Amino acid sequence: MRCHSMPMADVGIVAGDILGDALARIQREVDAAFDQFLPVPDDTRAPLLEAMRYAAIGGGKRVRPLLTVATAEMYGVNRDAAVRTGCAVEAIHVYSLVHDDLPCMDDDDLRHGKPTLHKAFDEATAVLAGDSLHALAFEILSMPETSGDPFVRAELVAALAGASGWGGMAGGQMMDIAAEGGAVHDLHTITRLQQLKTGALLAASVEMGAILGRVPDEGRGHLRAYARDIGLAFQIADDLLDAEGDEELAGKALRKDEVAGKATFVSLMGAEAARTQARALVDQAIGHLASHGSEAELLRALARFIVERDR
Amino acid sequence: MRCHSMPMADVGIVAGDILGDALARIQREVDAAFDQFLPVPDDTRAPLLEAMRYAAIGGGKRVRPLLTVATAEMYGVNRDAAVRTGCAVEAIHVYSLVHDDLPCMDDDDLRHGKPTLHKAFDEATAVLAGDSLHALAFEILSMPETSGDPFVRAELVAALAGASGWGGMAGGQMMDIAAEGGAVHDLHTITRLQQLKTGALLAASVEMGAILGRVPDEGRGHLRAYARDIGLAFQIADDLLDAEGDEELAGKALRKDEVAGKATFVSLMGAEAARTQARALVDQAIGHLASHGSEAELLRALARFIVERDR
Repeated sequence: MRCHSMPMADVGIVAGDILGDALARIQREVDAAFDQFLPVPDDTRAPLLEAMRYAAIGGGKRVRPLLTVATAEMYGVNRDAAVRTGCAVEAIHVYSLVHDDLPCMDDDDLRHGKPTLHKAFDEATAVLAGDSLHALAFEILSMPETSGDPFVRAELVAALAGASGWGGMAGGQMMDIAAEGGAVHDLHTITRLQQLKTGALLAASVEMGAILGRVPDEGRGHLRAYARDIGLAFQIADDLLDAEGDEELAGKALRKDEVAGKATFVSLMGAEAARTQARALVDQAIGHLASHGSEAELLRALARFIVERDR
Repeated sequence: MRCHSMPMADVGIVAGDILGDALARIQREVDAAFDQFLPVPDDTRAPLLEAMRYAAIGGGKRVRPLLTVATAEMYGVNRDAAVRTGCAVEAIHVYSLVHDDLPCMDDDDLRHGKPTLHKAFDEATAVLAGDSLHALAFEILSMPETSGDPFVRAELVAALAGASGWGGMAGGQMMDIAAEGGAVHDLHTITRLQQLKTGALLAASVEMGAILGRVPDEGRGHLRAYARDIGLAFQIADDLLDAEGDEELAGKALRKDEVAGKATFVSLMGAEAARTQARALVDQAIGHLASHGSEAELLRALARFIVERDR
């Protein structure tokens, strides 16, 4: 029997390897940062902050913050600045899960193995907690503690706002709702949908690491190519997990795509072809890092993890 | 009979006066800016963009953008930059109304005299449209077209994110939910609640005008005092409107505080004392502008308008 109250160890990775250590470390750091960003005030806002903490602390793989930190560290960025920036990306990711789980959206009861926020609290608090985590992301990015350089702060905000709004994640979620109605049947449209819904924020995680590292815009091409490939691989792996995964291990409801009659990479390509495609994308992503040496080892390990994870 | 399809003229202000002209102008400018920021794409995101346009274009008094523009113009700021910044504040205001109107929140059917967004579209689209307007606000602020100076952009983001998150508007909304349960009975707590729920964003509107005008932090004291007083006056006027206003004219449901058994300035002070207090706050707000000459005339007129408006 697996114990879901231990968030660090249970990621299907052999302890002691580069990725397992890095995931355990970033999980601790992100939890500590959110703990600091979200003090519970001594007034009637307390339930809001408790709800934000419930959603943000102690759950999730923290793939996005790790992408930011792993990219930033390739360019010698101060670790604390990179963790704070990763927390901003994660705050957007968490808010989107909270709103996605609402009864009017996916109506999910379980997330990270515990009741979803609107089940543990109530719907109004879930809407407000999501909204407040959304604002927190931009508060974090605008603090001088995140970067002393206002140009960097403004670039970080531009990258994150662009990736999360109608031109990115929220736009992809809208396309996803349309796809549930059975309107989408082709791989091209599914690919575009997923590039927005999941890919944009994963790409921003890498991009924001590069911004912190002051990599000039024209020097970010290979990182963007890496991010695009792992973004797509990540979503194919998610579709495979939904079709074949262990519900208890995943800590959330699965088989939802099939029930909703939604076209996915798996329903369109078949599971075997989808798995082959995901692995090819990971190889391709790693290929884009060829100009880097051992400093890119964590990004390479992350790419492999994305298709091998079991939750 | 009043015609609610003409948004410009019907603000209870004599046409030709400084404020009536300024409101009509900013309403046109904000509508034009949102029209440009929100193109409807040729894919299944179209309903999302249509929903955002439905909420953002052609409604509202645009008091917040006018506060930003009126403050910025006192310091010679380029009008286009000030309008864009005002649009960012308004995008936050509009998203908060969309989420506030949801069935799990205030469950309102009418806003600006037309069906609320979740009535005209559906709840999922309303959640996503609110989230997307939220992100749009920060996208606008991070564009070089809004300010060529990254320090100004980063300061604008800090002011807006701080005013809209758990330490501002969203925190105030949470306190408001608690107050509906009858937990709040004293003026001190109501004042604090309203300072967060309404006051923080009104204050940010003025603050962001000062940021654009590069007014040094230590030179903003009188503007902050002005903003604090009109913020409180605005909310007292809102409570009076809820208690005594014309529902058709307001374009939304009224008498909601009484039905919810919620303590307000009016229920705690009585209507006459509340009216006197609101007027005293406006006089005090105008007093804070004593060091300015005719360039502050619009801010003075706005302060008076806030307690005299009929919707």
